[in-house]
Amino acid sequence: MLKYSLPLLFLFFFNDVQAQRNLIPFVNPLIGTEKMGHTYPGATAPFGAVQLSPDTDTIPYEKDGKYNGEVYNYCAGYKYEDKSIVGFSHTHFNGTGHSDLGDFLIMPTVGALQLNPGIAADTKSGYRSAFSHHTEIAEPGYYKVMLEDDNILAEMTATTRVGMHQYTFPKSDQSHIILDLMSGIYNYDDKNVYTYVRVVNDSLITGYRQTSGWARTRTVYFAMAFSTSFFEYGQKNYDQRQVYNGFWGKFDQRKNFPEIAGKKIRMYFNFKTEAAEKIKIKFALSSVSQSNALENMNAEINDWDFEAVKKKTQESWNAELNKVIIDATDDVKINFYTSLYHTFINPTVYNDVNGQYKGLDQDVHHADGFINYSTFSLWDTYRALHPLLNIIQPSRNSDMVHSMMAHYEQSALHMLPIWSHYNNDNWCMSGYHCVSVIADAIIKGVYKGDPNLALEACLTTARHRNYEGVGFYTDMGFIPADKSGISVSNTLEYAYDDWCIAQLAKKLNQNTIYNEFIKRASNWENNFNPESGFMQPKLSDGSFKKDFDALNTNGQGFIEGNSWNYSFFVPQDPVKLIQKMGGNKKFISKLDSLFSMQLPDAFFAETEDITREGIIGGYVHGNEPAHHVAYLYNWTNQPWKTQSEVRHILKLQYKPTADGLGGNDDCGQMSAWYVLSAMGFYPVAPGSDEYALGSPAITNASLKLENGNTFTVNTDNQSDKNVFVKSVLLNGKILNKHFIHHSDIMNGGTLKFIMDSKPQKK
Amino acid sequence: MLKYSLPLLFLFFFNDVQAQRNLIPFVNPLIGTEKMGHTYPGATAPFGAVQLSPDTDTIPYEKDGKYNGEVYNYCAGYKYEDKSIVGFSHTHFNGTGHSDLGDFLIMPTVGALQLNPGIAADTKSGYRSAFSHHTEIAEPGYYKVMLEDDNILAEMTATTRVGMHQYTFPKSDQSHIILDLMSGIYNYDDKNVYTYVRVVNDSLITGYRQTSGWARTRTVYFAMAFSTSFFEYGQKNYDQRQVYNGFWGKFDQRKNFPEIAGKKIRMYFNFKTEAAEKIKIKFALSSVSQSNALENMNAEINDWDFEAVKKKTQESWNAELNKVIIDATDDVKINFYTSLYHTFINPTVYNDVNGQYKGLDQDVHHADGFINYSTFSLWDTYRALHPLLNIIQPSRNSDMVHSMMAHYEQSALHMLPIWSHYNNDNWCMSGYHCVSVIADAIIKGVYKGDPNLALEACLTTARHRNYEGVGFYTDMGFIPADKSGISVSNTLEYAYDDWCIAQLAKKLNQNTIYNEFIKRASNWENNFNPESGFMQPKLSDGSFKKDFDALNTNGQGFIEGNSWNYSFFVPQDPVKLIQKMGGNKKFISKLDSLFSMQLPDAFFAETEDITREGIIGGYVHGNEPAHHVAYLYNWTNQPWKTQSEVRHILKLQYKPTADGLGGNDDCGQMSAWYVLSAMGFYPVAPGSDEYALGSPAITNASLKLENGNTFTVNTDNQSDKNVFVKSVLLNGKILNKHFIHHSDIMNGGTLKFIMDSKPQKK
Repeated sequence: MLKYSLPLLFLFFFNDVQAQRNLIPFVNPLIGTEKMGHTYPGATAPFGAVQLSPDTDTIPYEKDGKYNGEVYNYCAGYKYEDKSIVGFSHTHFNGTGHSDLGDFLIMPTVGALQLNPGIAADTKSGYRSAFSHHTEIAEPGYYKVMLEDDNILAEMTATTRVGMHQYTFPKSDQSHIILDLMSGIYNYDDKNVYTYVRVVNDSLITGYRQTSGWARTRTVYFAMAFSTSFFEYGQKNYDQRQVYNGFWGKFDQRKNFPEIAGKKIRMYFNFKTEAAEKIKIKFALSSVSQSNALENMNAEINDWDFEAVKKKTQESWNAELNKVIIDATDDVKINFYTSLYHTFINPTVYNDVNGQYKGLDQDVHHADGFINYSTFSLWDTYRALHPLLNIIQPSRNSDMVHSMMAHYEQSALHMLPIWSHYNNDNWCMSGYHCVSVIADAIIKGVYKGDPNLALEACLTTARHRNYEGVGFYTDMGFIPADKSGISVSNTLEYAYDDWCIAQLAKKLNQNTIYNEFIKRASNWENNFNPESGFMQPKLSDGSFKKDFDALNTNGQGFIEGNSWNYSFFVPQDPVKLIQKMGGNKKFISKLDSLFSMQLPDAFFAETEDITREGIIGGYVHGNEPAHHVAYLYNWTNQPWKTQSEVRHILKLQYKPTADGLGGNDDCGQMSAWYVLSAMGFYPVAPGSDEYALGSPAITNASLKLENGNTFTVNTDNQSDKNVFVKSVLLNGKILNKHFIHHSDIMNGGTLKFIMDSKPQKK
Repeated sequence: MLKYSLPLLFLFFFNDVQAQRNLIPFVNPLIGTEKMGHTYPGATAPFGAVQLSPDTDTIPYEKDGKYNGEVYNYCAGYKYEDKSIVGFSHTHFNGTGHSDLGDFLIMPTVGALQLNPGIAADTKSGYRSAFSHHTEIAEPGYYKVMLEDDNILAEMTATTRVGMHQYTFPKSDQSHIILDLMSGIYNYDDKNVYTYVRVVNDSLITGYRQTSGWARTRTVYFAMAFSTSFFEYGQKNYDQRQVYNGFWGKFDQRKNFPEIAGKKIRMYFNFKTEAAEKIKIKFALSSVSQSNALENMNAEINDWDFEAVKKKTQESWNAELNKVIIDATDDVKINFYTSLYHTFINPTVYNDVNGQYKGLDQDVHHADGFINYSTFSLWDTYRALHPLLNIIQPSRNSDMVHSMMAHYEQSALHMLPIWSHYNNDNWCMSGYHCVSVIADAIIKGVYKGDPNLALEACLTTARHRNYEGVGFYTDMGFIPADKSGISVSNTLEYAYDDWCIAQLAKKLNQNTIYNEFIKRASNWENNFNPESGFMQPKLSDGSFKKDFDALNTNGQGFIEGNSWNYSFFVPQDPVKLIQKMGGNKKFISKLDSLFSMQLPDAFFAETEDITREGIIGGYVHGNEPAHHVAYLYNWTNQPWKTQSEVRHILKLQYKPTADGLGGNDDCGQMSAWYVLSAMGFYPVAPGSDEYALGSPAITNASLKLENGNTFTVNTDNQSDKNVFVKSVLLNGKILNKHFIHHSDIMNGGTLKFIMDSKPQKK
């Protein structure tokens, strides 16, 4: 997968950032694009609002108009297995399990104009093109591929709010740029609401696209500038609806008509090109207005120097990646820096260069004193992504909490975000895990805003009785299974979230609130069945529901997990959980079973979001609920099992190949798990300042912290075989526990792991 | 129709506007609501952005879902003949021949909740109610009616941007306010695009409604405040489309859920009312944002005093109406002031109190130094409405030209408006008559902006070769009938418009432009067939099209008129027209025929927009193309025929009854014709500073001009029988022509008509 030979790497420095290593070659954005990773390979700046990436097939209909069920596979627009590229669109999620975006698809073609994308089996049937991975290069902030049908070289890069395209055409009198404003990801329910385009002059257009999909109410404004004037242009409206349209009486709207509107628009721009002539496009986005999009464009890219834009973006990528310098095997380096890359592409910047953004209340707001972020996949990312950012991106994570607070202030429901992107909450997944992110950021001293207002937002959210069973949960301490299909996982998640609120209240000396929420934090006990040793759904009458199946992920009261995985979901109190499960020995035995059991084939058929490889025994790493579970051995007398299982997962679930991710990257959560675990520590319960130690997969890691300190993880004798920790020294002193504190990291210093091939059973 | 006895009128003064007469009782907004007038009877402030008016039936489908063809009759939402009111919506056109608007329909009900409007034949089938004209009062700025089904008294008033409702309920535990966000005028093609509502608290909601109808791309934002807290609320989405909607998994959205979005939404708000309890609503609009709507509301109505708002609005109406004080018979007074009212309700204010508005380019703009207006029905209103405003509302007309220039600057097509409302051009009708309004305003010294920029805008518009035949027109001097269905009327209209541009160029000493356009101004001659004496369609080869029928309005090359009417459309050069038509005698004979011919019944069946009463002989007053024709006798030696025909038209086409208008009021053009003609003068060719004299229907008229001067029209011996002018004195001096100049009016003075029962054949 590496595009450069390794020996060259360490010789290569950017001229103007002398102290930095060039880590670009260790990032392979193609990792996770095959199977279930749902990553996108295209160009984006760190935390960029634009994700300019190839879409290989997002068209959910067969030729006969029947839905082909393929939407899920195209959450990121691109499938490595595909043989054709439909075009390059400007917005993509990284690793989600539901889809949206794919706005403003651009495709260059030559020859007879084709406005339909055509079908994969016959790329000549439309504007799409065959391509091969041999010509494909994917780097942070850069993507390149040869479009074979028409022999057009496509290259792209991006700044935070602007995508830049560079197409090298053959000689032709019929060279086209297609702008497909109908195309999008998750279009099978016809999410297009409205489109508007204004041709300002022969090299600039502006407009917007409005959709109602995963984000129910979403409008993206754009400005699109061409490096070369088109000599003609036109459009076709594929909407069959006939509305009064006086335009038609006055003009031929099909060609060279500069004011276009409708539901399903495809446009084309015609050029005459010389051999190897480059046509470049700047494509800027805004959530506010066309003029803001134009302002974003002019502020971020003020000329047509594609190479300079690419260089600058890759420099900013290097600056971000250099926050952690590791020594490790090549595979680990690629996994590590690709993971780090994936943790730095979301959440995404969501305000214009002038500070404006469209808020959750659909009005325009100004981000005062912070960068506003969106794309909060919180059920996933509270676990490891935001804790990781608290260490290596505290300023950004502070701004992310600011953004969550702005969302709360704009919420008619008076709730913090659940799963928000653009000015919407799609309410995906469960819990109110924003409170975990907020508590963790405040407890770790990261959040710069008012902690008391933040606590108030957490309380209001957690007390929203109408929200998915919270009323029952508050009154009864559990959610009756006859009232909700995900009664158990919700209770477990609420209990953890409530523990976070309690920790925050404690920090702010709000004892009454602490007492209320620390009590709620024990509600997980209500779903624990001491007879079976599992978390089980309970009915309104207090009895456990019959026909319980701890392996089944459907209809058992859980979401994206079964009881085998969820029964360990008490990150806030493993001690009590161990006690409930019968003590140290029984608990270890149960954990052992999880990691070693043989699952029936049927299990895989019915499990979403993950591949067979995403499961180890019965432990599902491809989904998140058990992400902390390997670390629970640390609370037993066999912590070496944490060490081996963590290394096991690092090895099996992350590979430096397109199919290298065992499940959806889930907006960086899978990758954040890798980054932290590979360095040897993991936040089992965000909201606490403790990290459980595991087994580092790197030889050396150096974290350059924003406060100027450096925290180093050293290893002695670390190898694929030497996965067991013999001893750990913090700043030279033996550590007699399997945990470190946040302050141990932030104060700088050295954590040294002395490794061995055998467990340290002392 | 009068709601007060006349003797009281002159005793009634508003306390704080001592010098003003109370003219409110002479305005009857119900005039024109029956048959084809298409006026609305509801409450609006002068030139108000809100037109809060009852909709009696805008539902274009029968119970079986079939389109019932009724849309045209409901251009204003209200038909006098109807027996039920569906509700009260906030935007209406005055007298258009195509429809749109009808946003945000509100209806109060009691008893079991009904969210469907029901059908007219059975008002109990839905939320609509029976009503009777006996309980109905319509005044400038005030409308009142008893909703009989539920015994609820409905009253409404309006400020410029805010509608205020007052509903007097019976005692009930089930009192409802329905907010129908699906309802609209011209909905038969399903113009609803999107709707969003946010329940801010228990007495305030905000949101927007987006439609694609006559205005292709239109979003109206609102803020709605209740004087009393609702105790619960809810919604139903009538859109069958199923989009991903995570909301449903988390919440019951039907009831008390504060964030609502979709295509077809109806909402309800529940109250418990005591007997005679009033629930008041303030409903503010904005084209920019919810927060602007709220700002508009708070700026214009800061309390809940309905009577005070009504009083203030009626005072502002009196201030406007007092610009012309007349003595006349009661019927003439009612016709005159109702006409004046109709000339003062459009164009409509189109900017928020903070100056912002959504422009034609769909971006937000700020009206700097002018009030931005919309609703420009220019094919109609260039003829008499804007010339009238140049006399009695010059500041507003200057701002209207400013608004047209802003439209031009925002136009991707670089064109002045044709028929614009909100931030759209619907391109309705023909010509580019904006240039007439602009030339007239500049030539008459009214426009305060840069005249050279205005000329440039006129030129760019008139040279837009892709616009409806302009290319042919420019190259060939006419539009070939084989290229366009309205080739003749277009050529005639362009020729007149070009003459206006020539006049403007002359005024600005642009001789080259003057020469170019004065030449184009004679293009009408190319469609004149000297053999038939009619304007006729001409083919590309220069020959006149066969099978010509001068009476037929369809397929003969004209729009909303036949050759009989359009053949006189050379307002810029009647002298030449007379000469072409064979001189004085033949011309008179032809005009006589127009006014006296007997039309076949078939003619009426195929004529749009006008009633049988809207036609005198073959002269069609119900449509605009011949509005100047009665004045053409002034260019012959029988000017007394102008006098008798004008009086004839004033008498026949305007009556103080609901069915009193002979055709669509066309955004005030029909009414402006009345106001001017009733005072004895009319602008045959706007762009010239001349007015042709007719025969005044008033006894006395006093115009209070903005410059402080007063212009008075006096009559001696004027009566229904004494319609002929014996002599005219301007400031005491005999006038030896049938024309006065604009300056004669604006300088103040007295125009005295001495009337007689016999024509003055000297």
